[in-house]
Amino acid sequence: MNRLGLDIGGAFIKYALLPAKGKAVRGIVPFELWKEPGKLAAMLKPLRPKKPYAAAITMTGELCDCFKNRREGVRHIVASAQKVFGSVAVYGVKGGLLSPEEAVRRHREVASANWPLVPRRLSLLAKNFLMADIGSTTADLTPVRDGVIANNGFTDYARMRHGELLYTGALRTPLPAVAAALTVGGRKVPVAAETFCIMADVHLLLKSIAPRDYACPAPDGGPKTARVAARRLARAFLADDGDIGMAALLAAAREAADAQRAQVVAAARRFDLPVIAAGTGAFILEPAFAAGALTRHPLAAAKDVASLDPSLALACLLKGGV
Amino acid sequence: MNRLGLDIGGAFIKYALLPAKGKAVRGIVPFELWKEPGKLAAMLKPLRPKKPYAAAITMTGELCDCFKNRREGVRHIVASAQKVFGSVAVYGVKGGLLSPEEAVRRHREVASANWPLVPRRLSLLAKNFLMADIGSTTADLTPVRDGVIANNGFTDYARMRHGELLYTGALRTPLPAVAAALTVGGRKVPVAAETFCIMADVHLLLKSIAPRDYACPAPDGGPKTARVAARRLARAFLADDGDIGMAALLAAAREAADAQRAQVVAAARRFDLPVIAAGTGAFILEPAFAAGALTRHPLAAAKDVASLDPSLALACLLKGGV
Repeated sequence: MNRLGLDIGGAFIKYALLPAKGKAVRGIVPFELWKEPGKLAAMLKPLRPKKPYAAAITMTGELCDCFKNRREGVRHIVASAQKVFGSVAVYGVKGGLLSPEEAVRRHREVASANWPLVPRRLSLLAKNFLMADIGSTTADLTPVRDGVIANNGFTDYARMRHGELLYTGALRTPLPAVAAALTVGGRKVPVAAETFCIMADVHLLLKSIAPRDYACPAPDGGPKTARVAARRLARAFLADDGDIGMAALLAAAREAADAQRAQVVAAARRFDLPVIAAGTGAFILEPAFAAGALTRHPLAAAKDVASLDPSLALACLLKGGV
Repeated sequence: MNRLGLDIGGAFIKYALLPAKGKAVRGIVPFELWKEPGKLAAMLKPLRPKKPYAAAITMTGELCDCFKNRREGVRHIVASAQKVFGSVAVYGVKGGLLSPEEAVRRHREVASANWPLVPRRLSLLAKNFLMADIGSTTADLTPVRDGVIANNGFTDYARMRHGELLYTGALRTPLPAVAAALTVGGRKVPVAAETFCIMADVHLLLKSIAPRDYACPAPDGGPKTARVAARRLARAFLADDGDIGMAALLAAAREAADAQRAQVVAAARRFDLPVIAAGTGAFILEPAFAAGALTRHPLAAAKDVASLDPSLALACLLKGGV
């Protein structure tokens, strides 16, 4: 049996296929669900495995504002997956797999429920840790104590209230959401409240990510090169070409990256647990581990831990895991 | 001679026509230049006055990230206007009108140069004041001392450095740019770093603006009613329908509006001048005048001052004013 796990977000579809024989196949499909929700089924179709197969989905895409509310979003995503896969299992925040009908009825349990998948799987191997899963847009901080997920919140709203969901990520986060002002030429200059520059530009400029990691559209639709990222950063200060030299732009980028890391580190430290960092933005925490601001959990060094994500954890779950 | 003044921004085209006889005709055309720059000429065409006429433009739209840089933006906007109006004058920050060819050559002087038009015109009537022109997206704080524009900065970048341009406005400003967190149910809850809710939603909820004043697209493309604005505000906290009651949402909206006003008031007070508030967002400062946090310049009470904007000032300039 081929087993497919899908994580359907607002900007990406991530998938993991565990074939009956052979190695796992992983992938990520950039897809701006909020722009074209009607195209979701067409985007999923090429991912359908050969028969016989089992497929399961988890999601965050139901939050997109193309949907009136999460109920409508869950219903649309589940229906699109059903159309492509026929019977499809839907992951619920309590840990079980629901039928499409149950999922729509219990939409609150499946809305944005992808975050417990990886920590739950890792709880087979370690009992006390903080999972810090930093994605393109958000960071999930999930405490596991005595082998059990120990969140205060179990919905996005509750997790955000309790500092368990941070709305900051490695790629899509607009620069002004990270810093209202940055130092340029010895003076704090406000950052324009527009999406002229995103954190992918900042991390690209600092070589923390490579151009191929810039897995979302650039704000201006332009190229994903350091030169053009620098132009986008300058535009955030409303500066013209040449107004700000490259050294000053790099310093401002560094200041923004530091501010982002400081926010995540401060939130993570409140849990007082050794940390397993994962996700596209795991690199953000590296300097904090190096400096001793956070303790790294030994499991983080284990083979395969870094590559675990909700889609793979979900595919494993279909084989009968946690 | 019919005289037309045009202020071409990234989200709106404002116009003022002074006919040879009769009263001025004013209007505002919502147009997202950054989405469809090629349509600009087509948007301008219906505004062309009957012959004989003179037309002049000023702009901020050249900042849009559909243009590689401001030079390219100025060139496109000037060429589009030329196509429609033939000979067209372009306002330069130094106060003069330039030919299209000069304007393209001296693009730094015409880029985002609409802000001195109104204070320069008012300097005919008063010698010392701060013009606080709060638009949909930004607030221009322009000091006039001894009848002369007394800015430290004369480009957007320099004005932002010197606190003479604030990137906050009454309509388009995303909520997270105003407040990173707001109080809900006695606890500070972070605001998601997405454009789920804009200040137009906040001011609509507080009845500071009417639905017809919500002159930009809603973030979700939805209706501009208090009920749906409340939904957009709840989404900014990632909350589902019903998670947050209307009283709590109104309190959060009030807190956001207060934070925005405090930012503008703090910036304005640094100039130590009596203030003339203008623009779509002039209402933001009303409570500050009432509380004595800012002094209102007596000229603000004069007939027609409130309705003056760059497009009208420009049309007057064509008749031979300041």
